[in-house]
Amino acid sequence: MTFNDKLRKITLKNNSLLCIGLDSELAKIPQHLKERGHPQHEFNQAIIKITHDLVCAYKLNTAFYEARGENGIRELKRTCDYLKESFPEIPVIVDAKRADIGNSNEGYTKFIFDYLSADAVTVHPYLGQEALKPFLDRLEKGIFVLCRSSNPGAGEFQDLEVNGKPLYQVVAENVADKWNYNNNCGVVVGATYPSELEIVRRIVDKIPILIPGIVTQGGDIEKTVKSGVDSEGLNAIINSSRGIIFAGDGTDFTQKARQEALSLKNQINEFR
Amino acid sequence: MTFNDKLRKITLKNNSLLCIGLDSELAKIPQHLKERGHPQHEFNQAIIKITHDLVCAYKLNTAFYEARGENGIRELKRTCDYLKESFPEIPVIVDAKRADIGNSNEGYTKFIFDYLSADAVTVHPYLGQEALKPFLDRLEKGIFVLCRSSNPGAGEFQDLEVNGKPLYQVVAENVADKWNYNNNCGVVVGATYPSELEIVRRIVDKIPILIPGIVTQGGDIEKTVKSGVDSEGLNAIINSSRGIIFAGDGTDFTQKARQEALSLKNQINEFR
Repeated sequence: MTFNDKLRKITLKNNSLLCIGLDSELAKIPQHLKERGHPQHEFNQAIIKITHDLVCAYKLNTAFYEARGENGIRELKRTCDYLKESFPEIPVIVDAKRADIGNSNEGYTKFIFDYLSADAVTVHPYLGQEALKPFLDRLEKGIFVLCRSSNPGAGEFQDLEVNGKPLYQVVAENVADKWNYNNNCGVVVGATYPSELEIVRRIVDKIPILIPGIVTQGGDIEKTVKSGVDSEGLNAIINSSRGIIFAGDGTDFTQKARQEALSLKNQINEFR
Repeated sequence: MTFNDKLRKITLKNNSLLCIGLDSELAKIPQHLKERGHPQHEFNQAIIKITHDLVCAYKLNTAFYEARGENGIRELKRTCDYLKESFPEIPVIVDAKRADIGNSNEGYTKFIFDYLSADAVTVHPYLGQEALKPFLDRLEKGIFVLCRSSNPGAGEFQDLEVNGKPLYQVVAENVADKWNYNNNCGVVVGATYPSELEIVRRIVDKIPILIPGIVTQGGDIEKTVKSGVDSEGLNAIINSSRGIIFAGDGTDFTQKARQEALSLKNQINEFR
C-alpha cells in the first residue's frame, strides 16, 4: 500500500486530520517516567495507546532523539517498531528534514525507510530534484518537501521574488509538476502562514500537505483547516506536538493528552 | 579556541588545505575489517593514524553512519572521541546538513556539538537565520551554510534569479553580511562549480569555504584552489572522501590512502 492510500484510509476510518508530533524531549516528559529504561519510548507508547483512534498520523522529529545520541536513536526505533506492530494502519512520518547529494541520501533512506520502517519523511528542497532521487524513487513512501516553514523568519529566502512570485511557490510548483512522477510527494507548510497555505493548496491540488505550527506556535485552527484541505476536505495533515503530549506533566498525562487531542480533532472537523 | 583559530593553526602547521571525508560506508570498507566489532570506526582510525599530518580537517557525513541506526551512531561517536583525544588540534566537521525551526535545532546542536563534540557542522539555509540561532549562537563552533551544492542538479533553485542575481549568491551575501555576527560562519560550495566558487569567494571575503566534490565528482584541482582560497591562500577546506579512503580495498588500504592524500595535498599546494 502506498503512503497516500494509507493516509486516505486512516483519515476516513478515524475521521481525523490530526497528526500528533511525538517531540518527546527527555527534559519535558513526566518525572515518574524519566527513571525507566527507555523513558522516551515509554512516554510515546503511553501517548499512542490513548490517542491512536484520534489521529491520521504520528510524526517523530529526529532532533529530540538524536540529542541523546545512540540511546535516543534506539528509543526512536522502539517507537517506530511499536507503531508498525501494533497500529500498522497509522502512517509514521519521520520529520528528519534531511537532504544531501544522491550518494549520501542513500544512507538517509536506509535510516528512515529501512531501519526505522517509516512511511514518510520530510526533506529540504535546496539541492533540487536530481539530488533527492533516492527518496523520490521510493514508490510506497511519502516524501514531504519543505515549502513554507512555520518559523517567524521563514521569509528570508522563501519570500524572495523569482519570476514574479515568491520562492516558496516555485518550490510548490516544481514538486507538484516535476518531482511527483511517482505520486508520492507532499509539501510542508506552516499553520502560522494561512495565506501562503491557501496559495500552496491551489498550486498542489490534491497533494498531501503536512501542516505544523498549530496551537503552541500560534496557528489559527479555522484558517488552517479551510486553507489546508483539498476539494474533498482531505490531505491536510495538521500536526500538534507539545500542546498535546505535554498537556499534563503528572501521572495523568495520558488523560490530559487525550482530552487535548480529542478537542483539537473535533475543532478541526468543525471547519472541514 | 574558536573553529576559525583552530583551522588556521592546523592549516599552517600541516601546510595543507586538504580535508579527508570519512564517508566510511560499511559495504565499501575492506573485507578483513568488516568482521570487527566496530568496523567503521576501526577503518576510520586506521585512515586517521596514517593521514593526520596531511590534513586541515576531517569531515564525517552522518548519512553513512545513520544508515546503520544506533550501531552506526555509536561508531560515529567513537571516531569523534578518538579524534578529540588523539588529535585535538585537527577540526572535526560533522557534515549533517541539518536545519529545522529553533526548538528542534536545540536537539541537533546537542547531538553534534555536545554528544559528538564536533567543531563544525553543515546546515541548510532554507529556513533562514532566525531558525538557525541555536547553531549560530555557538561561538566556538563553525557553522557551514550550504550555498552551492556539488550535484549536477544544484541549479534548480540555487540558480533562480533574485534581484538580478542567482539565489546562491544571495545566500552567500546574507551569511557574510548578517549571519556571521559571531564570526563563526562558513559556506559550502562544490568544486564542480569553479566559476560560482570564484564569485562566492569574492562575496564572503575571508570566511572559510568547505569545498566538496573534488576528484571523484570531477572537480578540477587547479580551478578549485585558485577560485577557493582567500587573499592569503587560506580558508579553503578542500574535501576528498571516496578518492582517498577507498583508494585501496586490501590490507594495504592505509598506504594507498596515504599516497592519494599526499599527492592531493601536494597538487593543491602547487596552485595556492
